[in-house]
Amino acid sequence: MHFVDRLFEAMQRAGNPVVVGIDPRPDELPAGFLERFPGTWDGVAAALSRFGSEVIDVVAPMVAAVKFQSAFYEAYGPCGVAAMHSTTDYARERGLIVIIDGKRNDIGSTAEAYARGYLGKVALDGAFEPAWKADALTVNAYLGSDGVAPFIKIAAKEQKGVFVLVRTSNASAGEFQDLISGGKPLYRHVADRVSQWAEPHRGACGYSLVGAVVGATYPEQLAELREALPSVPLLVPGYGSQGASGRDVAGAFDSRGLGALINNSRGITFAYQRPAYNARFGSDWQSAVAQAVRDMIDDLAANTPACRLREAATVA
Amino acid sequence: MHFVDRLFEAMQRAGNPVVVGIDPRPDELPAGFLERFPGTWDGVAAALSRFGSEVIDVVAPMVAAVKFQSAFYEAYGPCGVAAMHSTTDYARERGLIVIIDGKRNDIGSTAEAYARGYLGKVALDGAFEPAWKADALTVNAYLGSDGVAPFIKIAAKEQKGVFVLVRTSNASAGEFQDLISGGKPLYRHVADRVSQWAEPHRGACGYSLVGAVVGATYPEQLAELREALPSVPLLVPGYGSQGASGRDVAGAFDSRGLGALINNSRGITFAYQRPAYNARFGSDWQSAVAQAVRDMIDDLAANTPACRLREAATVA
Repeated sequence: MHFVDRLFEAMQRAGNPVVVGIDPRPDELPAGFLERFPGTWDGVAAALSRFGSEVIDVVAPMVAAVKFQSAFYEAYGPCGVAAMHSTTDYARERGLIVIIDGKRNDIGSTAEAYARGYLGKVALDGAFEPAWKADALTVNAYLGSDGVAPFIKIAAKEQKGVFVLVRTSNASAGEFQDLISGGKPLYRHVADRVSQWAEPHRGACGYSLVGAVVGATYPEQLAELREALPSVPLLVPGYGSQGASGRDVAGAFDSRGLGALINNSRGITFAYQRPAYNARFGSDWQSAVAQAVRDMIDDLAANTPACRLREAATVA
Repeated sequence: MHFVDRLFEAMQRAGNPVVVGIDPRPDELPAGFLERFPGTWDGVAAALSRFGSEVIDVVAPMVAAVKFQSAFYEAYGPCGVAAMHSTTDYARERGLIVIIDGKRNDIGSTAEAYARGYLGKVALDGAFEPAWKADALTVNAYLGSDGVAPFIKIAAKEQKGVFVLVRTSNASAGEFQDLISGGKPLYRHVADRVSQWAEPHRGACGYSLVGAVVGATYPEQLAELREALPSVPLLVPGYGSQGASGRDVAGAFDSRGLGALINNSRGITFAYQRPAYNARFGSDWQSAVAQAVRDMIDDLAANTPACRLREAATVA
């Protein structure tokens, strides 16, 4: 089944467009969590893996997808990377769609190595096996078409997805992305290429396996790009701890409630740190996670077309 | 010692500005090489590690630095990443400066995780330890200053380096990088920011720990950027199998023969595949590696100011 049909059907079944971002910052793990593991590279990795799996146990019945921030695993070396690997596998076992947020990019033949590794298969003992089992990967398009094409080619072959950075959620996003060339900002140049790349790869729901990353912290650009790129699913970071709310992301959806994936990382996984959740749940950080997901679902249902996700039986 | 002084002094001792790129594409390893290892993830990883180490044994007495292409290791999952980790450690043991070519990029707090992981230290059992021991990392600046600043901050603290993608070596590099805004192309906007970021972090030789990646396949831009960014060391990919020669990279150097690092990956590590080397060395791929490095050193000495590297006793 085409990646985007699979994704949006899963979001309709879940009844919400929430992506839970798993960014296991070791120094923000619940009190006593790290201490249950040996103080070695393997021990920290086991803690990251255990934390991710426990988050997944809470959210798997509630949402369609999770996004893993590779940086927090790579920061702990090969053991950390192994923890991301085992946690992504566990997320898939639990039926979740797995996005790896690696923002990878390189020249064509090297981009193909990333694409085969994360989305496809590599040669192993005369056969071809998946090294990673991600459903989708984020990529950076600064190198242009020939740096992105291998990701799309492999994704199309393997029924996976690619999300290209268009407008990022950080404060200095506009430094280069807003530079005006030929009457439009750089991010629109990138967006228009994304639209071209996306067009040949549409699923039954009308959307493509080629998506765009557009930050919730820029609501106007989000609405502009939703309209300009009708076949491009938008992966939207920045909700929650980066400051954006349901109202800010309303423009990311089409009238069916499709077209957007709203990510929240720290606001969910580390909800236990926030006074309101802490007062209610104390050291029961998993209940804080579940409540933070419910609160986000309610916010999106009240303030965006995502409320219509539950109405349709199927995407197509 | 400041990263760039250490780097250029090492290049003066070696008498050349060659960076050997280690891109272990499994299907290009010498005949029979993979077969010496089990056909498992660990086995392929052991092959990648062994190949990298054998390349290092050949080139360590000849050049100052090696560059590891992360994609080819990540493509084999956590075992592949562990192979890169052990091979980078081995390169440092052999006295080489290690550049990890990961083109990492993310918003500030996540970029900091990458920076701590690859260039700095992370918390482990109450202390701080390096997860990776890279001397420098390549980064992509599409997210602007706050996505790059953490890399520079950690590099400055740890006497490491950062190379920011400015003008890449691939055919479609110009698709976004040549877009004209305010009278100059995007790559010059990025380059001018790199120059600003570089200025506060200069070593005794006048160059900064903040460098730029500029492809050898665009000789005019290389010369333009050498002149425009006098304190920015240029990491130059694209020599050899991507088509560029010594003449093409001449403009990357200053009159002292400093300022440029010329990378060659496949042209060195897989030299045994090329007819001239194959005819001379047959299955002795290590001798082909050594000869390819000598040929590159001679080409650069004959056609660029790199010939002057040997004249000076010290950089500063």
